[in-house]
Amino acid sequence: MEVKKEIRIEEKQGNITLKNRKEAFITGVVEVIRFNEEQIRLNTNQGPLIIKGENLKMNKLDVHNGEVNIMGKIDSIVYTGSKKTNESLMTKLFK
Amino acid sequence: MEVKKEIRIEEKQGNITLKNRKEAFITGVVEVIRFNEEQIRLNTNQGPLIIKGENLKMNKLDVHNGEVNIMGKIDSIVYTGSKKTNESLMTKLFK
Repeated sequence: MEVKKEIRIEEKQGNITLKNRKEAFITGVVEVIRFNEEQIRLNTNQGPLIIKGENLKMNKLDVHNGEVNIMGKIDSIVYTGSKKTNESLMTKLFK
Repeated sequence: MEVKKEIRIEEKQGNITLKNRKEAFITGVVEVIRFNEEQIRLNTNQGPLIIKGENLKMNKLDVHNGEVNIMGKIDSIVYTGSKKTNESLMTKLFK
């Protein structure tokens, strides 16, 4: 039960919605490392995340709820590391 | 009215939803160019799109409705070109 609950929370929090390449809604954000018009670096519960584009603006930043909303021309969304938490969780589950 | 209608359709179709880094739901897909376990290349109404990851599987492919669903470990989502259709539309609008 404990584990199932954790997974549900992970799934709720670790999502990215990209609308028409000009709005990104990200959940599961742990911290914002760097932000400018061309690049946004975040730590998320799915691993470090880099968003690149043009004229990027942050419309919402709510680390308490793990939410970041971005507007601009979004060109790429890249996870630069592995999602350690989830992997260890999954390993436990499928052993 | 004509232009507004077009934009609404574009917005409906050109979205990506990435759930917990292991499921991607893509709309606005025009064609699938290449697909293997590590890389998926698509043409979308937002421009050419490359999705990279591990153990990628295509769960749904419906070009008629522009829908593709992918499962696996998703590492990156990259638009490799500009969204010509939208840009020309936007240019018309803001002239």
